[in-house]
Amino acid sequence: MAQKKLGKQTLQFGSAPVILSKASVVGPKEGQGPLGSYFDLALQDNLDNQKSWEMSEQKIMQHSIELALEKAGLVPDDLDLYLAGDLLNQIISSNYTARFLSTSFLGLYGACSTLVEGLAVGSLLLDGEYADTVGVSASSHHDTAERQLRFPTELGVQRPPSAQWTVTGAGSYILTKAGSLLKIPQVTIGKIVDKGVSDSNDMGTAMAAAALDTIKVHLQDTGNKMEDYDLIITGDLGLLGLNVLKELLKHENLPTDNVSDCGIMIYAPDQDTHSGGSGCGCSAVVLCYLLDQMLKNKYKKIFLVGTGALLSPTSIFQGESIPCIAHGAVIEK
Amino acid sequence: MAQKKLGKQTLQFGSAPVILSKASVVGPKEGQGPLGSYFDLALQDNLDNQKSWEMSEQKIMQHSIELALEKAGLVPDDLDLYLAGDLLNQIISSNYTARFLSTSFLGLYGACSTLVEGLAVGSLLLDGEYADTVGVSASSHHDTAERQLRFPTELGVQRPPSAQWTVTGAGSYILTKAGSLLKIPQVTIGKIVDKGVSDSNDMGTAMAAAALDTIKVHLQDTGNKMEDYDLIITGDLGLLGLNVLKELLKHENLPTDNVSDCGIMIYAPDQDTHSGGSGCGCSAVVLCYLLDQMLKNKYKKIFLVGTGALLSPTSIFQGESIPCIAHGAVIEK
Repeated sequence: MAQKKLGKQTLQFGSAPVILSKASVVGPKEGQGPLGSYFDLALQDNLDNQKSWEMSEQKIMQHSIELALEKAGLVPDDLDLYLAGDLLNQIISSNYTARFLSTSFLGLYGACSTLVEGLAVGSLLLDGEYADTVGVSASSHHDTAERQLRFPTELGVQRPPSAQWTVTGAGSYILTKAGSLLKIPQVTIGKIVDKGVSDSNDMGTAMAAAALDTIKVHLQDTGNKMEDYDLIITGDLGLLGLNVLKELLKHENLPTDNVSDCGIMIYAPDQDTHSGGSGCGCSAVVLCYLLDQMLKNKYKKIFLVGTGALLSPTSIFQGESIPCIAHGAVIEK
Repeated sequence: MAQKKLGKQTLQFGSAPVILSKASVVGPKEGQGPLGSYFDLALQDNLDNQKSWEMSEQKIMQHSIELALEKAGLVPDDLDLYLAGDLLNQIISSNYTARFLSTSFLGLYGACSTLVEGLAVGSLLLDGEYADTVGVSASSHHDTAERQLRFPTELGVQRPPSAQWTVTGAGSYILTKAGSLLKIPQVTIGKIVDKGVSDSNDMGTAMAAAALDTIKVHLQDTGNKMEDYDLIITGDLGLLGLNVLKELLKHENLPTDNVSDCGIMIYAPDQDTHSGGSGCGCSAVVLCYLLDQMLKNKYKKIFLVGTGALLSPTSIFQGESIPCIAHGAVIEK
């Protein structure tokens, strides 16, 4: 039997869990972006006929898991377990979606690393034979996140150039036991890296060091090389953060040609998002696009590095710096 | 090999994970309560010489995992993984404690069910051979939770008789591979139960139905009987909620003699907490006491049912009811 633990931080799945289906629901801005046509559904507006933005966010998460189940020919009761998380206080988008599903549920919080955290826990449930079918979701919503974490969008507060734009979007994935399509053979669970950055309008720079740490640990734990991956994709460092990560990789004599970021891919430069996208929903929906590209043979093996800035407004107001984390998942065809 | 999945919601651990050590740090009110002398440390005041209550909460969580490691003769680097959660927005107590530990970290959110969620995920990491040593923590703090979820304590807002008192406390546990002491042979992962209760000052009543559901599913999945347990202990329904649960159990013709609640045990009736204790820290510290009693042979086998009210102030203001969950862990000597 293959070793299940590689080094200190990497879990290896002998009977690699398979991504059976996936679905993405996004807001209008994301629908108008370069990946717009790849998403399953784009809302006409961020409120989507709901009474509040929070209700809209919950609805898109629910819609995405419903779609993912439907594509897999499953109903909620077929799930052994549901794993979800989001940016809202007490992860309410996830809790109310889990209420709809009425299946065993574990709530997760890892900021923008939440999707990969879910894929990791889901994979070990499957590989360890504790479950046969697992659902994983993550979401964010521009207007809910901004008013909770920064300023209500109605205020029109000017955003600094380093700020990232919280994505309105939800992505859901159905994981199942060994099959032949898109597999998750390894995940690397990150540790907190905090270089003292305390500007919550520049989280990409704060998270770059965590992404570097997880990439380095992953290569060390597995013996893999950067070149073994067609794409190493962070989610979400944004323009500024990705540049910092590339500089850090160069200092380590690691190649950067195949390194990109979900937050950069989701918006066009003329969409005025400043440093690109962010939020749990960003990598959660961009991964749907990437998996499509894998199915079309553009990529054979990718390493998705979910990066989370684990601050709160309270911790920043009280003078703390931003603790960051990055969890990585290998996905191969 | 024993079956790893029992029924729909129960995981069974063939090489049952062992609780190697435990530690509890509480506030002054909890220190003056009936279990006061069983806790490792009771603060003189809730601020504990920190600049803010949030910093005090983070410090007690850190202190509890430091103590648990010390008792096990371990250092942070001996942990393969750390699992933690708390009530604060973006679980900052956990994130900043994980920064101190600098080990692989997965953040969890399950309100008062968080400790059992952590014990469950930790157990499957160990039983599945993905880790050798795992740390689990949960915390809450009266003044941080009250000002975030209800009213700042300085306001002196009158609390209704149904309200529970958020415990200031942190409990940490070191789990390791098969050994001979306190084992976790089974966990039952709850699903959301929402009976339409929307009074956030009566969460015990809301959560009682979730506790009932998990107890019933557990008995069904495992074939165990209520009488097989020396104690079935919820955390935390409080006085009102426990009475509701007992009524519900009676309707199902299930005995209630061995059913109790962490929120009732932690305070004396004259401590003026109304319906008893609550918060992630309540069951997290009371379990330390219960394990001591198990080591002294008072109990041989218990079923800890962590109950979480997965609301947020926002969801309640927007007219939603309270989605509740209960995760159960069997602990036997």
